[in-house]
Amino acid sequence: MKVIVDFTLVPIGVGVSLSEYVAACEEVLNRPGLTTELHANGTNIEGEWDDVFAAIRACHEKVHGMGAPRIHTNIKLGTRTDREQSLEDKVNSVVARQKG
Amino acid sequence: MKVIVDFTLVPIGVGVSLSEYVAACEEVLNRPGLTTELHANGTNIEGEWDDVFAAIRACHEKVHGMGAPRIHTNIKLGTRTDREQSLEDKVNSVVARQKG
Amino acid sequence: MKVIVDFTLVPIGVGVSLSEYVAACEEVLNRPGLTTELHANGTNIEGEWDDVFAAIRACHEKVHGMGAPRIHTNIKLGTRTDREQSLEDKVNSVVARQKG
Amino acid sequence: MKVIVDFTLVPIGVGVSLSEYVAACEEVLNRPGLTTELHANGTNIEGEWDDVFAAIRACHEKVHGMGAPRIHTNIKLGTRTDREQSLEDKVNSVVARQKG
Repeated sequence: MKVIVDFTLVPIGVGVSLSEYVAACEEVLNRPGLTTELHANGTNIEGEWDDVFAAIRACHEKVHGMGAPRIHTNIKLGTRTDREQSLEDKVNSVVARQKG
Repeated sequence: MKVIVDFTLVPIGVGVSLSEYVAACEEVLNRPGLTTELHANGTNIEGEWDDVFAAIRACHEKVHGMGAPRIHTNIKLGTRTDREQSLEDKVNSVVARQKG
Repeated sequence: MKVIVDFTLVPIGVGVSLSEYVAACEEVLNRPGLTTELHANGTNIEGEWDDVFAAIRACHEKVHGMGAPRIHTNIKLGTRTDREQSLEDKVNSVVARQKG
Repeated sequence: MKVIVDFTLVPIGVGVSLSEYVAACEEVLNRPGLTTELHANGTNIEGEWDDVFAAIRACHEKVHGMGAPRIHTNIKLGTRTDREQSLEDKVNSVVARQKG
């Protein structure tokens, strides 16, 4: 089952600057089979369900390994059986309506 | 790795009443190894990472099987390495501060 | 416009224990016109749109005032025009399906 | 108080294609004082707290007015008192770490 995800990881207990942890997590997400897009409030990910959640789990393990004792994560996810849809398709479908 | 999750499933394309789908999903989540608590905006789940996400995946499969062509899901999740914490502990730690 | 919200506040840069801040926020949310229910991963709130968001803003101000330099918050919110629905109705509609 | 938001609106009860509603909402968000960026799973918004939530409320009103009887929305929001940060800053701080 293919899934499209928006993923935001918030390390807790490591001070106020989180970019080092988010960057390490981006590196973990950069795997064959996953398409990722960093944006200002998270990372969009497209891939097979099990691959996506294995990568998110690996992010948690990586960030705990860097010293974060606690992590809060948000995931928005979408699955659909009516048709295939990519990250790019989702943006394009809105933009097409705006121009229409 | 233990995880505490808040999970909200929104079936799309099946009309305005969603409780039938949420109830079917509750049934799927009712598995050995998982503790669940239904609340007004979702379900809190406590368990091992792989068990929790296998159950959430099974919910998506169940709800698609019931005819929902599209599903939007929200997950808030927490992991920590400093100490064990249950769903009950999380509520109690806030309540203790309120009484304190 | 009435709204039903699930609200989770995560103070950043104040260490790993957050219950003190969540408890202070609960106190802020305890206002005439709002119904609230604390659960393991957040607080459910029912009220008029402007009242709810004024209270959430007051939580941010309170928690910054307690010394948190950064706050990450999650809100799930629902509005509907087809009928009135309370926090209690939402749980009951699922439970009724489970028994059915 | 300045806020950075990730906003995802899911109309319920209008079928499976939602782009028409999201596009209408984008138009509503396009106001003086707000910076917005559409991405595959939502829209990032930067602005003053009251302006941002007035715009999100106006989206709900617009989309209900288009015929959606029910709306589910997700908001991730960040405030900070330690320094100013824009949408662009947030991406750049991660990218700088990746190159570093």
